[in-house]
Amino acid sequence: MSQYSEDSGYVVAVDVGGTSMKGGVVTRSGEVVATDRRPTGAEGGPENVVAAIRSFVGDLAARGSSLLGRAPAAVGIAVPGLVDDATATALYAANLGWRDVPATGLVPLDVPVLLGHDVRTGGLAESVLGAGRELTDFLFLPIGTGIAGAMIIKGGPYGGTSGWAGEIGHIPVFPEGERCACGQTGCLETYASAAAVARRYSARAASPATAERVAALTAAGDPVAVKVWDDAVEALSLALATYTLLLDPSAIVLGGGLAEAGPLLSDPLAARLGERLTFRSAPPLRKAALGVSAGMLGAALLGWRAAGVPDARASWALDVPKTSAVP
Amino acid sequence: MSQYSEDSGYVVAVDVGGTSMKGGVVTRSGEVVATDRRPTGAEGGPENVVAAIRSFVGDLAARGSSLLGRAPAAVGIAVPGLVDDATATALYAANLGWRDVPATGLVPLDVPVLLGHDVRTGGLAESVLGAGRELTDFLFLPIGTGIAGAMIIKGGPYGGTSGWAGEIGHIPVFPEGERCACGQTGCLETYASAAAVARRYSARAASPATAERVAALTAAGDPVAVKVWDDAVEALSLALATYTLLLDPSAIVLGGGLAEAGPLLSDPLAARLGERLTFRSAPPLRKAALGVSAGMLGAALLGWRAAGVPDARASWALDVPKTSAVP
Repeated sequence: MSQYSEDSGYVVAVDVGGTSMKGGVVTRSGEVVATDRRPTGAEGGPENVVAAIRSFVGDLAARGSSLLGRAPAAVGIAVPGLVDDATATALYAANLGWRDVPATGLVPLDVPVLLGHDVRTGGLAESVLGAGRELTDFLFLPIGTGIAGAMIIKGGPYGGTSGWAGEIGHIPVFPEGERCACGQTGCLETYASAAAVARRYSARAASPATAERVAALTAAGDPVAVKVWDDAVEALSLALATYTLLLDPSAIVLGGGLAEAGPLLSDPLAARLGERLTFRSAPPLRKAALGVSAGMLGAALLGWRAAGVPDARASWALDVPKTSAVP
Repeated sequence: MSQYSEDSGYVVAVDVGGTSMKGGVVTRSGEVVATDRRPTGAEGGPENVVAAIRSFVGDLAARGSSLLGRAPAAVGIAVPGLVDDATATALYAANLGWRDVPATGLVPLDVPVLLGHDVRTGGLAESVLGAGRELTDFLFLPIGTGIAGAMIIKGGPYGGTSGWAGEIGHIPVFPEGERCACGQTGCLETYASAAAVARRYSARAASPATAERVAALTAAGDPVAVKVWDDAVEALSLALATYTLLLDPSAIVLGGGLAEAGPLLSDPLAARLGERLTFRSAPPLRKAALGVSAGMLGAALLGWRAAGVPDARASWALDVPKTSAVP
């Protein structure tokens, strides 16, 4: 006999990152009854990644079976790169090296599977369970090693015509600016990602530092750190002004490592965004609620959709985020 | 007896601009059986504008009655500024000076009315009848005195949270650039609208010229005109790169006065947009198909929606644009 309610059932949820994967066993009522973490194994090539995901899904299903006495109802997987929703195929991911991997190839069980783009799946979770819970139209902007946004439009994540929507990290905020690794010039990401903040400080101070350290130095008034931080805020204010003018969101939800800086980031950013806009108001900035669990929780929501329970979330406890920290 | 089919019925459609209004009598099968044009009368204040619209709608309905032997099924009106779809109220328009005008206040008849935002209503027409006919996700960008876009998302025009979406004319393309009339700095519109092209050339050449004339001078190699034109193309390429990276549209439909320059605008713009994007392809640029009739035809589509015939367009002839030029 399980300690969980009999009709709950569960899904296996996996969030595949560039270096590690986060997995969970999530019931229909949103209880995260098990979580795990494992390397993606990208250095071993795409076949290695596919094998690692299959084995992770299989192990999570075994955990679920032993805890809940049955096989999972479905599997949801968030992956980086391009995803074709119609054919449930992971089309392409530069950091994993794969092309055209069918969802069924990632799962060793005969159960329904749904794939989602990683950032949009995180945005789905923030929209259903997190900081955008009551909003239908907002931007979820995780600022980490890179920057990509999940545009929530009319209640759901928007992928554009071909799955490439949301590349706000590569809009040209400073057209005469620095060259980005993507080959374009003046991209937001090249000034404002956590990696960029660390890189730009380290180059100017001739001393390596993480973004977290640059934030601390900025708070302490270190002039080099202050300038680098200010450039990041300026770049973000331009990008968010552009987003606001184009999409008129009801809020902007900041996530990822850089958002951990809290008011050190959000206070000057909100002020500068407000100054930049003259004929309309700025949307409020909010902090993401789900942290690093957003992708896994979004994958669980996808899993419940695959299982034919699109409204599983309706019954999810409001404190899901608090109980779901991935180790 | 009417020369038109008995079950056709018709709607009255009006496109309200800053200085003039375009009106039409449009049957269920999309025949534009009458058109007219009239001053908006904005110099007389908002009450004057409301009275002018009411009288125009009444006169068009009288034309329709005499041609088709019945009252209109409904009225569709495209207006500038902010529109609240839910309450059918024209909330605000800087150029008309009005606030909170209910749709029913614009119509002297007891028939259903739908209001639409002018650019989005034009985008609706291009999406249903024009250059975006088979597309669900694209940008309609009329470049005239000002610049605003209609973002067609998932098959329909997108207004954002509060009706302010699509303000691509005021995204900061050159953050250190020229001050815009809106108070912001480096807006697309301040470099690339037809008015900006005329203004910037006239200031540099110390000789007044229309945008059309600047285009002709550019084609002839006049160095001042070439530089002004090049700035406009550069600004547009930045804005369209940003739009493409954020929204991944399947096409960009260029309209308005500046698009009349044809390849003089679209060739360098397509080239520069393609160069600017490195990790994804550029969407094709298309020329708008409906010209200055887009707003009136979109208003007719709104009218048919108000009449409870949302799919009126399904039966519309493909050559509607050719038969509907507004005088």
